[in-house]
Amino acid sequence: MAKKKAAKKSAAKKASGNSTKYVYTWGDGKADGNGSMKPLLGGKGANLAEMTRIGLPVPPGFTITTEVCTYFYDNKRTYPKSLHQQMEAGIANMEKIMGYKFGDAEGFPLLVAVRSGARDSMPGMMDTVLNLGLNDATVAALAKATDNERFAWDCYRRFIQMYGDVVLGVQKRPGEDHEPFEEVIEAYKHETYSNKDIIDSELTAEDNQELVARFKKLVKDRTGHSFPESPWEQLEGAAGAVFGSWMNDRAIVYRRKYGIPAEWGTAVNVQAMVFGNTGENSGSGVAFTRNPANGDNELYGEFLVNAQGEDVVAGVRTPFPVVDMAKALPAAYKELLKVRKILEKHYKDVQDVEFTIQDGKLFMLQTRNGKRTAAAALKFAADMVKEKLIDWKKAVQLNPADQLDQLLAPVFDAAEVKKAKQVASGLPAGPGAASGKIYLNADRAAAAADKGEKVLLVRVETSPEDLRGMIAAEGILTSRGGVSSHAALVARQMGKVCVCGASGVEIDYHKKTVKAGGKTFKEGDFLSIDGTAGTVYGGELKTAPSEIIAGLVKNNKAAQKTEKFQDFVQLMEWCAKATKLGVRTNADTPEQVKTAIAFGAEGIGLTRTEHMFFEGDRIDAMREMILAENEDDRRKALKKLLPHQRKDFFGIFKALEGRPATIRLLDPPLHEFLPHTKDQQKELAAKLGVKPAEIQRRVEELHEFNPMLGHRGCRLAISYPEIAEMQAQAIFEAAAQCVKKGIEVHPEVMVPLVGYARELQLQTEIIHRVAKEVMKAKDVKFKYLVGTMIEVPRGAVTADEIAEHAQFFSFGTNDLTQTALGVSRDDMGSFLNSYQENDIYPQNPFASLDQTGVGELMKIAVAKGKGTRRNIKLGICGEHGGDPSSVTFCHELGLNYVSCSPYRVPVARLAAAQAALAK
Amino acid sequence: MAKKKAAKKSAAKKASGNSTKYVYTWGDGKADGNGSMKPLLGGKGANLAEMTRIGLPVPPGFTITTEVCTYFYDNKRTYPKSLHQQMEAGIANMEKIMGYKFGDAEGFPLLVAVRSGARDSMPGMMDTVLNLGLNDATVAALAKATDNERFAWDCYRRFIQMYGDVVLGVQKRPGEDHEPFEEVIEAYKHETYSNKDIIDSELTAEDNQELVARFKKLVKDRTGHSFPESPWEQLEGAAGAVFGSWMNDRAIVYRRKYGIPAEWGTAVNVQAMVFGNTGENSGSGVAFTRNPANGDNELYGEFLVNAQGEDVVAGVRTPFPVVDMAKALPAAYKELLKVRKILEKHYKDVQDVEFTIQDGKLFMLQTRNGKRTAAAALKFAADMVKEKLIDWKKAVQLNPADQLDQLLAPVFDAAEVKKAKQVASGLPAGPGAASGKIYLNADRAAAAADKGEKVLLVRVETSPEDLRGMIAAEGILTSRGGVSSHAALVARQMGKVCVCGASGVEIDYHKKTVKAGGKTFKEGDFLSIDGTAGTVYGGELKTAPSEIIAGLVKNNKAAQKTEKFQDFVQLMEWCAKATKLGVRTNADTPEQVKTAIAFGAEGIGLTRTEHMFFEGDRIDAMREMILAENEDDRRKALKKLLPHQRKDFFGIFKALEGRPATIRLLDPPLHEFLPHTKDQQKELAAKLGVKPAEIQRRVEELHEFNPMLGHRGCRLAISYPEIAEMQAQAIFEAAAQCVKKGIEVHPEVMVPLVGYARELQLQTEIIHRVAKEVMKAKDVKFKYLVGTMIEVPRGAVTADEIAEHAQFFSFGTNDLTQTALGVSRDDMGSFLNSYQENDIYPQNPFASLDQTGVGELMKIAVAKGKGTRRNIKLGICGEHGGDPSSVTFCHELGLNYVSCSPYRVPVARLAAAQAALAK
Repeated sequence: MAKKKAAKKSAAKKASGNSTKYVYTWGDGKADGNGSMKPLLGGKGANLAEMTRIGLPVPPGFTITTEVCTYFYDNKRTYPKSLHQQMEAGIANMEKIMGYKFGDAEGFPLLVAVRSGARDSMPGMMDTVLNLGLNDATVAALAKATDNERFAWDCYRRFIQMYGDVVLGVQKRPGEDHEPFEEVIEAYKHETYSNKDIIDSELTAEDNQELVARFKKLVKDRTGHSFPESPWEQLEGAAGAVFGSWMNDRAIVYRRKYGIPAEWGTAVNVQAMVFGNTGENSGSGVAFTRNPANGDNELYGEFLVNAQGEDVVAGVRTPFPVVDMAKALPAAYKELLKVRKILEKHYKDVQDVEFTIQDGKLFMLQTRNGKRTAAAALKFAADMVKEKLIDWKKAVQLNPADQLDQLLAPVFDAAEVKKAKQVASGLPAGPGAASGKIYLNADRAAAAADKGEKVLLVRVETSPEDLRGMIAAEGILTSRGGVSSHAALVARQMGKVCVCGASGVEIDYHKKTVKAGGKTFKEGDFLSIDGTAGTVYGGELKTAPSEIIAGLVKNNKAAQKTEKFQDFVQLMEWCAKATKLGVRTNADTPEQVKTAIAFGAEGIGLTRTEHMFFEGDRIDAMREMILAENEDDRRKALKKLLPHQRKDFFGIFKALEGRPATIRLLDPPLHEFLPHTKDQQKELAAKLGVKPAEIQRRVEELHEFNPMLGHRGCRLAISYPEIAEMQAQAIFEAAAQCVKKGIEVHPEVMVPLVGYARELQLQTEIIHRVAKEVMKAKDVKFKYLVGTMIEVPRGAVTADEIAEHAQFFSFGTNDLTQTALGVSRDDMGSFLNSYQENDIYPQNPFASLDQTGVGELMKIAVAKGKGTRRNIKLGICGEHGGDPSSVTFCHELGLNYVSCSPYRVPVARLAAAQAALAK
Repeated sequence: MAKKKAAKKSAAKKASGNSTKYVYTWGDGKADGNGSMKPLLGGKGANLAEMTRIGLPVPPGFTITTEVCTYFYDNKRTYPKSLHQQMEAGIANMEKIMGYKFGDAEGFPLLVAVRSGARDSMPGMMDTVLNLGLNDATVAALAKATDNERFAWDCYRRFIQMYGDVVLGVQKRPGEDHEPFEEVIEAYKHETYSNKDIIDSELTAEDNQELVARFKKLVKDRTGHSFPESPWEQLEGAAGAVFGSWMNDRAIVYRRKYGIPAEWGTAVNVQAMVFGNTGENSGSGVAFTRNPANGDNELYGEFLVNAQGEDVVAGVRTPFPVVDMAKALPAAYKELLKVRKILEKHYKDVQDVEFTIQDGKLFMLQTRNGKRTAAAALKFAADMVKEKLIDWKKAVQLNPADQLDQLLAPVFDAAEVKKAKQVASGLPAGPGAASGKIYLNADRAAAAADKGEKVLLVRVETSPEDLRGMIAAEGILTSRGGVSSHAALVARQMGKVCVCGASGVEIDYHKKTVKAGGKTFKEGDFLSIDGTAGTVYGGELKTAPSEIIAGLVKNNKAAQKTEKFQDFVQLMEWCAKATKLGVRTNADTPEQVKTAIAFGAEGIGLTRTEHMFFEGDRIDAMREMILAENEDDRRKALKKLLPHQRKDFFGIFKALEGRPATIRLLDPPLHEFLPHTKDQQKELAAKLGVKPAEIQRRVEELHEFNPMLGHRGCRLAISYPEIAEMQAQAIFEAAAQCVKKGIEVHPEVMVPLVGYARELQLQTEIIHRVAKEVMKAKDVKFKYLVGTMIEVPRGAVTADEIAEHAQFFSFGTNDLTQTALGVSRDDMGSFLNSYQENDIYPQNPFASLDQTGVGELMKIAVAKGKGTRRNIKLGICGEHGGDPSSVTFCHELGLNYVSCSPYRVPVARLAAAQAALAK
């Protein structure tokens, strides 16, 4: 921290010579600053300077730089010597342009607005003081100059109230019910009109005059000092309040949350007042240059006639759509449309602006890039390219990657949602909307789906045994588990809608009922879940798939003709042009592979072979293998599994059409495959012809205290090498079949959970031997790679040794996060909330890569791995592969590809393209 | 690897100029090499040169260097050009000294022995070929020169057999029952004497002549080549066999196991034969210069008259104690006693020698440092200092640290063991010997001990609830769990004897019986366990505590007068002089503290506060705290715990007498404190006045899939800050009490399981606040530190950030190993064996620090921690703190202290001293 500060200081000195420039003025087409100077001038100040430079009508003013803020805190809340003089020059410049005088008690007095302005807009800081410069003398001058007694006293009353509140700190104290200034107004209205419903703008000049007197008394009573009459004292007080607010609690919490360094500091903007409240030919408004909801190319916003800016957002009067300005203030509206074009052309992005019309003349008070939905972003970008406002690279950058999946999700009709009753909420784990009859068991869910029912699988938690039910269901609802729980993981991979961890949902497996929101639902009753919002509704709500899914995956011609679809395809083409970082997919079936390829995946980054063991009667052979007492029996059972695995791999290779496939050998602890209830154990015993007690004994034997850290991954195949042997044989025999049929194959065999180079060496020996044997037996040749997951910290720090045996590394960041942090994602529910509230986790580390900790281990592994094997292939196959900021990190780390679930492929491609273009 | 090789090559070139010296001769008081040249000459060769230099009678010879071995493997098993010429010079030198000629068919032929000799002695390599140089011509010359036909043909027969076996590979084939040469002898004895019990030395010259003929035929049949008659061909064949054996399977496995690089290579030693088998004035023997079992200052070994060296170890004839040489070969014996003195004085260590007497003259064939027991080492070192043979530094280094705890363990009387029946075996988890009546439950064990019974606690596994029973027991026997299981850990900390994971022991809690070795033992029956060997005996065996424990801990005056005790105390004093690395202890009670201090601990490195919550009725308050539904109820329960904790800390501070105490805040997951059986839950419910279902619900709620990675450590106190608050209050109030009573205190408050700097920051704020409050309330001042465990990899790689808030780091290497490797020590039993057999784990990583992986993380943490806080205090408090090689690593890492269980303190002190002296 100390270092950064010093660097900033010396930079400031260097930039400014001996006497530092602390005040940057703008007005009348000229400005000291410009739009690129956000670090020094803050976002608001830089854009005001920029708008001035490009000839837009901006009331003159000046910015006190963020360096003054730094000075302020480094020097016991004092200011640099030369500041006051520079501010005087700033005011003089405004006076010259406006033709008014600051504190003029004779002619029109120059009034100013004072606003904070950090590099990024930051809630929690002092916002605005308007009408500064008024006092008992200037208020009279204003009244005279405008010939509007009521307007002048209204301004003065507003000013004392605002200044008293945000600068002097006259605010509600603990135990008080109302803001003190509001209390005074209420009392006055009550005693004068016996009516506290009268609105402030209905108060007369005399009312406001009386209120000014009472406000001043309140300030004196509360602060012990009189309200400052000197405009300069007011101005310095306001600037001090802005700087002071940089270190208030809310601002500190916000900065910590978003990782904004305290050294950045805030700027202060002082700007000549223009008045939207001088009459029917004046007004104020806010607008987007295009529709931020759907992206339509139209001015979009709200305005009020005869009002100051705060009135538009305060909600006392209902504002009108900005298009109505065409009638109410036609000249100003025309001007605003011109400004809109200029702004978009200049900023090459949709802008969010504030403006005021004083006596028919438009003034711009702020501009910034507008926030938008994913749909709007897609259309903005596509349209602006067509309009030649921007090029395709800029278009890629204008689409927020973390929102892209909104475009893929089916949605509930808004009207349906309004009618529906929300009965619970949970974590939004699989975006989209789904309605269906609830089933509490995978078999019954699958059976109902077979009969053509729309099904919602509802479970306390899901496990691999629920897979059939999950496949059959429209959506999955769980009452326990986080965004990385089995349900969430599988749902995302399959693109299923999912709400998980909905703790308000009480599930009774025995009675087959679900209680939620005070109602009891039986199996077969309808529930609806919104996996984007995490909400659960009673009853059925209609949904529709997005045009993009319909067009890409289901090849729906009508969908393919929509603008949204075409814009999306266009965007993905641009991404392909931009990026070097490949995107692969985590997929276990040919169907998933096809979906991912439709989304542009370049291959498979992770096939989890164990998922294949749950289908049909394979699970029996698998269980037989686990229960085997010796190698011979184990080999017998493995022999039964071999043809199934070979067939699976063949299907996957075929679907890949020559793209590479990273296949992970068996990973989970064996007990996951065994039945855990007495009935299931009995059933299995009967099938295998052993005693139920035998099965129970083996289940108990396989029990682990911490299965995550137990006998799994390559540890299984070190104990039982014949498992690796069978899997390698299945992979290579499938590859051989492909070659014979003229299908190109690139298998990449991946050994999981390697922490010691020797583990990989032993496994590699088996895999190479089997490859040689298969090629010889089948008389074909094919290329293949052998590599490993880096998913325990020891693997990362000994990556140099491991790379001796690995042709590729794939970072398994799910497990690497668990081990690096010492946190089980299945158990973190009990403290995740307090960890986020206390700003320990900036984000859930299983959703977005912990770049500081886990990322550091990855850096070490990359450096060490490349040290041994310069061209080692590097990828990531944890869930983070579909998270935009994690993808950016992977790009910077120099990985060759990221891999994510099929439905995250577009997000990853966009993030990868953006990372590449950012360089 | 390639790098190391290149470095070695260039070093060799550099050392030797253009023509490299490959052959180093010795003999007649002169030698090319010396004892420090083990890397080049191997251990045997270097010591033969050294013995020659110091004037001992060594038959002349030469060493072919390890560089030739490297050349051999780098050049397709060929030799450097100049080698043969250098060997010729070597042989010429021997001929000159001996007055014989190699291959002389006229006079006495020079015969040689060829032996391998790596840097460290290494089983699995070719050992010895004797009598090389004999052929049909020289055997006749030998017979003539010695006038002993039988002797000459016996030598020749032995030579062909040895050479045929180890050089020509005429060995037993798969399916054969006997060695082929033995087969020939058996057949000959049978057909000639109809008696195969006749021994080889009874065979006549003619018998041997016939056998030579038959052996030669066997060689021809098996190899397709005639037996080499040329002595030079024989010599080169033998040298090639030595080099070849460097890469045989057994040697490779051994090197991998002990981390010996293949590049070291082996040397070949060629030495003139001397004959112990020429008659009654000749003989061979092996000896230690002192007794390696008990350390007595006496020559200790065995010899045989009229025998070659192999005869002594072959076991065909029973050798005599070496002291008997005084009668049998008095002159040679006197000479040997002289040699003994010279060797010890020269090598400054006890030597293990081989010798041969030929016609009354003594020849030394080998010397090396002797292996010894801990007791012998202690006495050797102490005596040799008294004799002024060595200084105290050397004495410290002569004691093997990893054996020191042998000195502390009580032992079974050897006679008792012989009579006893071994019924099972398990892991030697707590060294020592214990007999007692078995109890299968902690309460019954404690009750029996209260009645004065000697008790052995027998459990499937132990948990913190068994603590009372473990304290009460003489020893602990478990049928499940490894050397790092709860039972083992607590046993070592308490110095209890423990055998764990004795899978042959079947425990029936219901019937209160233990089945082992086919017998059933009921509660109250005696069992005996040897925790040094891991054996379990039926019945009672007598034990005695070691003199050292008795003297140091029990202050037994008689024990203190023993030589062993005094030597030990002396050794510990030397250690204190040598070392900078401090040794602290892991202790939870004043008794443990006192024990550790008696062993020389400098303070506490780890107090686990949670152990304190199990005593008496505290567990009820603890459970009440856990079951609390809100902060108020939690605080109420914590208030009950406060006085207990305060009292505990006061007791510990008092016992420490001013030494520092690192106190870890609550660490384990809460469910560990709750009862898990229905009955216990009912009982607790009654006590707390809640429904049993309520308790069951909470237990289920607290269930975790991977508790090791769950809601524990500082995560608890982040969720419930009031826990940290109470513990800090207890610590600081106890400190305040001490200060008032004039007792010096140095509390060091340690926050567990920190992975994020912000976690520590939040905890630190609480601790500092409470410290300030207590000092103010009690009106005293004391110094204290706040620091953290580094026990998850993220903590290590972000140590720079964490050090902003930590005044010290203590490496929790138990958990750091679990998380870095992704291995649960409680679950590793299922693959530990295969991991050790496959040379993946060189050692159990929970017993000896994984320096490559976990150590790398520690290095990163030390560098980053010091980067932020130059003088940060660094320690280790994992079980590794008591493991010698781990202590050495900690010394090299620059830690300030290691901490281990009280009974490991001497081991750690010795290891620390040795590490310091090694620099």
